[in-house]
Amino acid sequence: MSEKKVFLIVCDGMADRPTRDRKFETPLDVAHKPNIDELARLGSVGLVDPISPGVVPGSDVAHFALLGYDPFRFYTGRGSLEAVGAGIRLAPTDVAFRCNFATVDENLTVVDRRAGRIKEHTQDLAESLNGMRITSTPDVAAEFHSTIEHRAVLVLRGPSISRMVSDTDPHATNIKVAKSTPLDETPASKKTAVALNEFTEKSFEILQKHEVNIERKSRGQNPANIVVARGPGTLPPITPLTVQYGIKAACVAAVPMVRGICKISGMEVLNVEGATGGLDTNLDAKAHAALEASEKNDLVFLHVKATDIPSHDGNFEMKKKILEKIDKMFGTMFDQIDLGNTYIALTADHATPISVRDHSADPVPIVIAGPDFPPSGLKKFSEKNSAHGNIGRIRALDIIPMIADRLGRAKKFGF
Amino acid sequence: MSEKKVFLIVCDGMADRPTRDRKFETPLDVAHKPNIDELARLGSVGLVDPISPGVVPGSDVAHFALLGYDPFRFYTGRGSLEAVGAGIRLAPTDVAFRCNFATVDENLTVVDRRAGRIKEHTQDLAESLNGMRITSTPDVAAEFHSTIEHRAVLVLRGPSISRMVSDTDPHATNIKVAKSTPLDETPASKKTAVALNEFTEKSFEILQKHEVNIERKSRGQNPANIVVARGPGTLPPITPLTVQYGIKAACVAAVPMVRGICKISGMEVLNVEGATGGLDTNLDAKAHAALEASEKNDLVFLHVKATDIPSHDGNFEMKKKILEKIDKMFGTMFDQIDLGNTYIALTADHATPISVRDHSADPVPIVIAGPDFPPSGLKKFSEKNSAHGNIGRIRALDIIPMIADRLGRAKKFGF
Repeated sequence: MSEKKVFLIVCDGMADRPTRDRKFETPLDVAHKPNIDELARLGSVGLVDPISPGVVPGSDVAHFALLGYDPFRFYTGRGSLEAVGAGIRLAPTDVAFRCNFATVDENLTVVDRRAGRIKEHTQDLAESLNGMRITSTPDVAAEFHSTIEHRAVLVLRGPSISRMVSDTDPHATNIKVAKSTPLDETPASKKTAVALNEFTEKSFEILQKHEVNIERKSRGQNPANIVVARGPGTLPPITPLTVQYGIKAACVAAVPMVRGICKISGMEVLNVEGATGGLDTNLDAKAHAALEASEKNDLVFLHVKATDIPSHDGNFEMKKKILEKIDKMFGTMFDQIDLGNTYIALTADHATPISVRDHSADPVPIVIAGPDFPPSGLKKFSEKNSAHGNIGRIRALDIIPMIADRLGRAKKFGF
Repeated sequence: MSEKKVFLIVCDGMADRPTRDRKFETPLDVAHKPNIDELARLGSVGLVDPISPGVVPGSDVAHFALLGYDPFRFYTGRGSLEAVGAGIRLAPTDVAFRCNFATVDENLTVVDRRAGRIKEHTQDLAESLNGMRITSTPDVAAEFHSTIEHRAVLVLRGPSISRMVSDTDPHATNIKVAKSTPLDETPASKKTAVALNEFTEKSFEILQKHEVNIERKSRGQNPANIVVARGPGTLPPITPLTVQYGIKAACVAAVPMVRGICKISGMEVLNVEGATGGLDTNLDAKAHAALEASEKNDLVFLHVKATDIPSHDGNFEMKKKILEKIDKMFGTMFDQIDLGNTYIALTADHATPISVRDHSADPVPIVIAGPDFPPSGLKKFSEKNSAHGNIGRIRALDIIPMIADRLGRAKKFGF
């Protein structure tokens, strides 16, 4: 272990886009956040392009870059990240899908993509699908796990299968469940599409007769009578950053995809009571878990989802309020941190501007404080101020190497 | 020749890292250096990443980038640079190694990796190894040259050999000289390792009987009784920048590796009396040599090693003093330079922070003054100030193209 500690705190979608109609003021500008502003004054500040200027990143791709993995080289789909994040062990040859329990009519036309946001008995439903025989591809096995509410993960296991297949989730209602088709010419992709289509048809045969669904129908609820799949993925071929740099790392995050990437990166993924990934998440519990984890780790990665939710809803006031809650979390951490031997960095995985209500390509602010990052002298942490910081403009992919260098763990290139 | 002249001055390891315990003040901050500070005020200032943020460069790799060659594409090992720098002509198929005369016992266990830092009669020793027959690979010839003190260069010449072999230098004492092994599966690498191992064994047979060593032993000195090799390299497949841009260029440098890269880049490599590559180097002689060279060249590259030495030693005061000496060199040059038709640029190949005592990934400051670089208005040339300069944050790889553009020698990309 290094003598120095690092906290890397990522607030999902925290960055916003200054707009004329709001006098170019963002939630970061107007929120009362004395602790974060003090951090920005004491630390070095700059702008980060999640990928490169003008590229709009998904949260998965953005987290690859944030953890030092070039997504153009290493990103191999979302399903595998969800699967690992849900605690499922994957072999490098497995293909994993994000799934929903959905409601279809007898023609397999989708009535409800989330089966009435079913909460109960999803494990019973999932178990009824495990052990299913896929007769058209007998060497492919299907493993199925329910996760949160209507969500689930399907893992196809077998020789010569591929993630290059289309979704069965039609991503809309009043149209039929889609047939998966191969996205390239390989036999592996054809085989995988065949297996997925058989799994999907059989899921309908099994689930529509399931007693859980018979009861739901009798109560007037939408039955969870089919599984639709999307986002096929395989394990990314990465070297864990813990191995790459010889460090120990832990992650405090509630979102399964983030937990998955962190696990694949070699981090210990902690469970924190009250950390929900929602607006109600217990930030104080997260802060304390991070502080405790730092005793046994060089790097603690702390992810807060709550900033992204009001951003997608276009709710300026709520985003401001969440930032003020996050500032209190920083206060808790600040009290226990010595900047003489600890680095604390705050950034976002991407911007989700209120005016866009979705991810955008805007650069995001970053602050890194610690024993040898000179003070920016800026009075406020904001998108506008960060453009005048002392880091300049870097890319998310640069952050982990910069930190590894500060920990003395970077390998020299050349002599 | 262009009507304009360029001086590109690189102070090795000059950049430092501001740290909290020194109130974020570096040697560049506290040194009295009125000439360099005036240059920063008159010229444009910015930050340079030697490679990219977080990547720690070796001096060789950093110089590739500084001369406009992407090291990820063109870097082919260190030994070839040392060989060329020592005046040895290499064919594209040759493999060159950096070598030491070392002292081993009869079991080939290393007693002293530098043979008592032997100074005398190393040419006699070297000559005894030339003409050696390598019987296991009869089409490979070995050419061996002593250079400075215990240092030497081995060139293997023959068809189908490779630089992908491990060192015989064990990089430590009290362990045996290493057997070179191939680092890939090619026959060329296997053959090269066999040739190097036979050369190494025979160097022991020949050197231990050499009269120079018999005399050294009789005087109680460690005999130079074996050659250990490291850093295999081949000629990098680059187009000389002089050809690329149609310019004439010269280099004032003492360090063999830097002289080698400059020679491969098409520069005339000058010999300057008193330019030692050490703390005692005659900077005034270097300045005058550079000024004189500028009469017949478009670009003069001036390298000063002295800043790197106290940095590796962690000697803040010495680094400050060296910077003050370098400032006087700038005074000499300033007196003779007209910024109306001359560019003068100062930067570092990499940072070697006092607090790290080794290369780091920190960005380094740059200033370029001349007829058409607007003044930064900054009052001091330092790491912190450069973050607020008017160049922004660039990469070392950008510098030569920027200069070529100012000389009107850049080729348009597209129409």
